[in-house]
Amino acid sequence: MSGELEFSHLGKDGRPRMVDVGDKDVTRRAARAEALVNLGPEVAARLKSTGSIEKGNVIETARIAGIMAAKKTSGLIPMCHPVPLDAVEVETEWLGDRLRIVATARCQARTGVEMEALVAVSVAALTVYDMCKSAARGITIETIQLLAKSGGRSGDWLRPEPSP
Amino acid sequence: MSGELEFSHLGKDGRPRMVDVGDKDVTRRAARAEALVNLGPEVAARLKSTGSIEKGNVIETARIAGIMAAKKTSGLIPMCHPVPLDAVEVETEWLGDRLRIVATARCQARTGVEMEALVAVSVAALTVYDMCKSAARGITIETIQLLAKSGGRSGDWLRPEPSP
Amino acid sequence: MSGELEFSHLGKDGRPRMVDVGDKDVTRRAARAEALVNLGPEVAARLKSTGSIEKGNVIETARIAGIMAAKKTSGLIPMCHPVPLDAVEVETEWLGDRLRIVATARCQARTGVEMEALVAVSVAALTVYDMCKSAARGITIETIQLLAKSGGRSGDWLRPEPSP
Amino acid sequence: MSGELEFSHLGKDGRPRMVDVGDKDVTRRAARAEALVNLGPEVAARLKSTGSIEKGNVIETARIAGIMAAKKTSGLIPMCHPVPLDAVEVETEWLGDRLRIVATARCQARTGVEMEALVAVSVAALTVYDMCKSAARGITIETIQLLAKSGGRSGDWLRPEPSP
Amino acid sequence: MSGELEFSHLGKDGRPRMVDVGDKDVTRRAARAEALVNLGPEVAARLKSTGSIEKGNVIETARIAGIMAAKKTSGLIPMCHPVPLDAVEVETEWLGDRLRIVATARCQARTGVEMEALVAVSVAALTVYDMCKSAARGITIETIQLLAKSGGRSGDWLRPEPSP
Amino acid sequence: MSGELEFSHLGKDGRPRMVDVGDKDVTRRAARAEALVNLGPEVAARLKSTGSIEKGNVIETARIAGIMAAKKTSGLIPMCHPVPLDAVEVETEWLGDRLRIVATARCQARTGVEMEALVAVSVAALTVYDMCKSAARGITIETIQLLAKSGGRSGDWLRPEPSP
Repeated sequence: MSGELEFSHLGKDGRPRMVDVGDKDVTRRAARAEALVNLGPEVAARLKSTGSIEKGNVIETARIAGIMAAKKTSGLIPMCHPVPLDAVEVETEWLGDRLRIVATARCQARTGVEMEALVAVSVAALTVYDMCKSAARGITIETIQLLAKSGGRSGDWLRPEPSP
Repeated sequence: MSGELEFSHLGKDGRPRMVDVGDKDVTRRAARAEALVNLGPEVAARLKSTGSIEKGNVIETARIAGIMAAKKTSGLIPMCHPVPLDAVEVETEWLGDRLRIVATARCQARTGVEMEALVAVSVAALTVYDMCKSAARGITIETIQLLAKSGGRSGDWLRPEPSP
Repeated sequence: MSGELEFSHLGKDGRPRMVDVGDKDVTRRAARAEALVNLGPEVAARLKSTGSIEKGNVIETARIAGIMAAKKTSGLIPMCHPVPLDAVEVETEWLGDRLRIVATARCQARTGVEMEALVAVSVAALTVYDMCKSAARGITIETIQLLAKSGGRSGDWLRPEPSP
Repeated sequence: MSGELEFSHLGKDGRPRMVDVGDKDVTRRAARAEALVNLGPEVAARLKSTGSIEKGNVIETARIAGIMAAKKTSGLIPMCHPVPLDAVEVETEWLGDRLRIVATARCQARTGVEMEALVAVSVAALTVYDMCKSAARGITIETIQLLAKSGGRSGDWLRPEPSP
Repeated sequence: MSGELEFSHLGKDGRPRMVDVGDKDVTRRAARAEALVNLGPEVAARLKSTGSIEKGNVIETARIAGIMAAKKTSGLIPMCHPVPLDAVEVETEWLGDRLRIVATARCQARTGVEMEALVAVSVAALTVYDMCKSAARGITIETIQLLAKSGGRSGDWLRPEPSP
Repeated sequence: MSGELEFSHLGKDGRPRMVDVGDKDVTRRAARAEALVNLGPEVAARLKSTGSIEKGNVIETARIAGIMAAKKTSGLIPMCHPVPLDAVEVETEWLGDRLRIVATARCQARTGVEMEALVAVSVAALTVYDMCKSAARGITIETIQLLAKSGGRSGDWLRPEPSP
């Protein structure tokens, strides 16, 4: 096992802890995450082609749920610090039959907002599922992942492009 | 578009609504869902091979977070009904470098517990990510999906096996 | 003072209490409430005449917030019992420059859902204000009131028509 | 429609968003709001003339509920930012048969506390209703509105006096 | 170690779980718990001898906080089931310089309300501390304990009297 | 009654209020609190002597519950301000048959974190009780108290040693 691997949320005795960020600087922090919801051809076609209000409602409800959930992140993730969010954006686009949900979170704090962005896309994706499940229970959420983060001691990180 | 597709959470005017379940019977309902967390070889090896306390802590913290989150489901998913949970179980197993998280939820109500099971595995997976992200930001949550549900008017549903 | 006035939430010593409903029957209960938001002529015209997406978003966001808030009622109102909501609907219509928001809540329980309906219209109205306040801080919420309730020992109640 | 009307919570595409306040200054912000509860002559007389403990309890419970709700505002109002409240005060006075509830909220942040003040008076008013509804279901909440706000880029705002 | 000791919240593998109560009967359940707050002679004298409003306010605020917290129990205690509370009462009495807080909770469910009663007295006691700490930081909460419970398979339990 | 006793959470009229901390400095603040859970000889022996996983689970679950509850403090304690927690630690040790739980909370704010530390140990203690109650309902939580605090205008405070 690698001695370089640092699990900041485990203390010397291996027990979970909310890391003490008191000595870190307050800096601008941002994070972006995505979730892919594979709706299958029938549901995807339905959502894309129906009137804007109906399609809008499944996706809009999901966007609102994602934004609201970002604010609840520290109440859901045990070792997560509360952060004063300056901004949360949730956007969507179609990739074939997949709905791609992307969230960006920003704050100025001693700790980052990766979890806020990830919770936003996760709850938005779960909401899409909830709104569509009576039509297709087999809908799958694929690939919830962090795309990028900036700020703080560990600086910028960008997800490597997948090898061709 | 298919006229058979039923979006129960959209009313006649296409607007989201909390479906009226008042005329449904109270029956035993269960649901099982899974999430796969791809930890990559280094982190997976670390979690598997370190002393039981440390490995136990990342996974145990995630299990507890998942159980607690199941109880918060109707507060996260807009059109979801509150349900009186009788049971929530969250279990894990290794599939190579992937941690597989499975949750089962049970209740006796007029509506099912698919969202409770899905929220449980999602928040458990997000917690694993949070606990490990300082070691590897590229960790991905793959494949959050419902595996099975039983009870209620729509009866039993089992996810088809993937074609070989 | 009238001896007929019954304050069920005040015990013999006048102190607030969560009334013991254990001896009441589980019956179908419903309640309907309304809120009026006076947007003033400029904002009302803007909301009514812009494309459906934009108008839809202020009102749709408010509807979703109202439905979600109904589920939080017992967490906000001190002496309110938790109830297993079967349904929550939030609808809107224009009365001149006023947006009228109406919520209906239903459950089967030992206690009614008047507060759930009232909280739904209140939070929906507050959300409309929040979404529009940068345009007009003077927007007023007028007349939050119960319209009707049914079920339970006290039976049906309908708000009297205002005298002509 | 007026091009001057600015709906800060709607992005370029008209979709709701939590406005990015990251470039705003942290300044002292305050807001005051009121709600009027029309209790009708019987209930008002009862509350005013009974011993201080009983009257105190309906109103005191409402005050406490209002203060607690102010802290929950960003969890209720979708596009609202979490703010670090420095102070919340809720006061009441009688205007004939109407109970007037006034809340003042203060913080030092990048965004204002109008919604915190409005949520405080709204939940306080709803609590008064809940405590009195068994005596009079027709009690109405009238006129929830912002009275004043200060701080931030948009500076001070005071509700105009109604024309005589 | 005793083989008779049954830890229902630990599964076969010793891991925490929310016990499956699906096969239990819905019966009337009640529980009573107490907390003792040792205020010391100065603060106790102040609270007892000042006008009813002031004393009332520290204790009344605590009572309300306790009732509200009972409803939040399953959100605080990881393996606790949500229960539909029928009643929560919180009462206080003086034992010398100690304020004794007693809560009774009732429901009709598949599981008991011991935790609801205990959380109620605990949060009430913590609220008394919060309201008085600027006067005396050394105030101690002593002896939070279950007094009695009834209903369910394990039947009635009454705390034995302390030996004289 | 002593004129020196200052109840900061009671305003001039004796009514509860969330104290205005807007004029205080943001300084580093910390607090430490403890709770003692008297498990009795049988349960204590069981928890101490079984394999680390099982013992670990009751205590670990309690630690996690305590950390999560600290973040919920301002939602439970009426007049408590929300604080941006930098750190929460919860540790345990055995004192005979008693499990001693100690929590330390830290933040940089205009107000202290005594309540966060006290809520952490209280909910951790309540969780231990919940996990063990099927084995011994008579388990008692003894002596929840603040041990020390630092920072802010009132400076450092350390609980006096008990007289021998």
